Amino acid sequence: MVATVRIPDSIQTPEVLIDLDVLQHNITSLAHAVSARGQRLRPHAKTHKMQQIADLQLAAGACGLTVATVGEAEVFAEKGVRDLFIAYPLWVGGPMARRLTALAGRTALRVGIDSVEGARNLAAQLGPNQGALGVMVELDSGHGRSGAVPGAAVEIAQAARAAGLRVAGLFTFPGHSYGPGASAGAVADESRVLEGAARDLRATGFGDLELSGGSTPTAHAATAGVATEVRPGVYVFNDAQQLEMGHCGFADIALTVASTVVSRRPDPRGGGRVVLDAGSKVLGGDRPAWASGFARILGHPDARVTALSEHHGTVEFPEGARLPRHGEKLQVIPNHVCLVPNLVDAVTVVRQGRGGDGLHGAYSIVDRWSVAARGCNS
Amino acid sequence: MVATVRIPDSIQTPEVLIDLDVLQHNITSLAHAVSARGQRLRPHAKTHKMQQIADLQLAAGACGLTVATVGEAEVFAEKGVRDLFIAYPLWVGGPMARRLTALAGRTALRVGIDSVEGARNLAAQLGPNQGALGVMVELDSGHGRSGAVPGAAVEIAQAARAAGLRVAGLFTFPGHSYGPGASAGAVADESRVLEGAARDLRATGFGDLELSGGSTPTAHAATAGVATEVRPGVYVFNDAQQLEMGHCGFADIALTVASTVVSRRPDPRGGGRVVLDAGSKVLGGDRPAWASGFARILGHPDARVTALSEHHGTVEFPEGARLPRHGEKLQVIPNHVCLVPNLVDAVTVVRQGRGGDGLHGAYSIVDRWSVAARGCNS
Repeated sequence: MVATVRIPDSIQTPEVLIDLDVLQHNITSLAHAVSARGQRLRPHAKTHKMQQIADLQLAAGACGLTVATVGEAEVFAEKGVRDLFIAYPLWVGGPMARRLTALAGRTALRVGIDSVEGARNLAAQLGPNQGALGVMVELDSGHGRSGAVPGAAVEIAQAARAAGLRVAGLFTFPGHSYGPGASAGAVADESRVLEGAARDLRATGFGDLELSGGSTPTAHAATAGVATEVRPGVYVFNDAQQLEMGHCGFADIALTVASTVVSRRPDPRGGGRVVLDAGSKVLGGDRPAWASGFARILGHPDARVTALSEHHGTVEFPEGARLPRHGEKLQVIPNHVCLVPNLVDAVTVVRQGRGGDGLHGAYSIVDRWSVAARGCNS
Repeated sequence: MVATVRIPDSIQTPEVLIDLDVLQHNITSLAHAVSARGQRLRPHAKTHKMQQIADLQLAAGACGLTVATVGEAEVFAEKGVRDLFIAYPLWVGGPMARRLTALAGRTALRVGIDSVEGARNLAAQLGPNQGALGVMVELDSGHGRSGAVPGAAVEIAQAARAAGLRVAGLFTFPGHSYGPGASAGAVADESRVLEGAARDLRATGFGDLELSGGSTPTAHAATAGVATEVRPGVYVFNDAQQLEMGHCGFADIALTVASTVVSRRPDPRGGGRVVLDAGSKVLGGDRPAWASGFARILGHPDARVTALSEHHGTVEFPEGARLPRHGEKLQVIPNHVCLVPNLVDAVTVVRQGRGGDGLHGAYSIVDRWSVAARGCNS
């Protein structure tokens, strides 16, 4: 690996780099795998928040996009996306209700609910102007976050229907798939919960149900389960978490943060510590207990990011390793990539050349993409 | 505490609120304390990144501002600040060197170095066009991040002088002050390291040295130590970390994130779990091992934020507590406030009214401030 010599001098660090060829490969290969299982792919756009990547996903066969907020939906509707699912138990009121109504008038739109109260509030706020809006009942398949207990699905769907809402289906986020070896169990939980609740709903007169599951770990699973659509987000870029869970390799990492060695403390036995100018304000600070550090370094599989402050990433190199020089540029692989585009206004799109020795060579800059939905938290 | 009824309906959550009276009190009281100890106050503007708050700090007697990046320095220089310290061991080259040269031509400017290599690189990149630029040698006083070992101060200062740079002083960040009961030891470490290195430098012909220390925990310390200036950042807002370290009370919290209960799971014994629409994309995800959770909730001292994903904050209420209703608005106190303004384009400035019962009443919105230096990582 020759990661340290390929970043152009014109790049001012820290800077988010997207490797276009890796990105395109990730988009295409998962689209094929999901399609081969007979499922629809509705990628979660909260990961990238960029029109250009949404366009690539839709061109590769995605049926529409998933988003997390009304604001993200507005951005992608404005860009021409005509099928959106806000996979979140919305509680709207005041200005937010008016924005949701406007959105439902211009695009196919589904939103989440996870309670009888949520169904009634949504119906009351929207009134009769619901356009093409449908509601998806969120169920907790084991993650322990939002989502109703599976046994409450019928009561919530009936309350939604009684309040005048169209019930489009069920969804769940098997977030407990995040952890080494955890995805098979999470896929099984997701299937069991969606299948059981769908049976209950069909028995009480609800038909034509979308069963929406997914997350990158479960979307990579070999078996489909019962979900009719899946909503992975991270797969477009991959990240250190996916790497350490075994869902991707270093060659599948499409997003890195170019950074510079600003401080250096060699160990007399070799290796030692360097500090990079990439910290939590560009990498995000997520660090699950099972992760080996706060990030990984491309081309330096033995290095570990042992601490992260806002503008400092502390990297430990083991005894015997060559310690990078002052000013050397390294590519940091963030732990959780969904946080990263949200921290910058734009990203630099690069392609790798082929070195004369058959290894990947220097990057050339091919584009710069704006993060259109950055900061759209509401 | 009546935190739950005072957020105006027009506020769409999650939204960053700044309580103007608390902010002004925090700014004024620390300015007085630092001045009374005979130190200068150079607040770290990376915390707020806002012109309006910089203006309040300078009006209260701050001698200038501290920033973390060239980009932040550019923003505040453009706003008219004429004394800036980039408290970071810069490694510049290419476009960044030209930006630094331009900056040094328009404002009094100090930048950090922590190595002989860094001194030589800076001098080579800047050439003779250094304007009023001075360098500050960064020392590691026990945090274990950037900064040279204290014994290397003379060698680095001599290399800087030999390369043509003006040596303005020494600085350190006693980040190991972050932890319950840790600040007294960190203040002592900071003083010992600054004093020892200053003695060494004076013995080799360096005079008129600025000795720059600080951090919010050490700036609150009762004794001054030897620092001639201090660089606290968090004190303007305070946060859950400062609260749990005992450096402030709930009444001193100037920044909160207004959020809405979107999901709810009561426990039959009382209390239970709610999910708020504020997650790591507006709160930041920092959680030191000693913190009681990922954030705190104003007005609910017994509640704990036990999990945080991008748009979900999971809050546990103890047995017997009243569980907030669906749609109820809560004010979240982030663990580490420096991450929060960087996540939004603007903040809502509020003032509390006085309720008829003598308690604080509803907020009125008095202004909206742009986060001028948001995203300035380079």
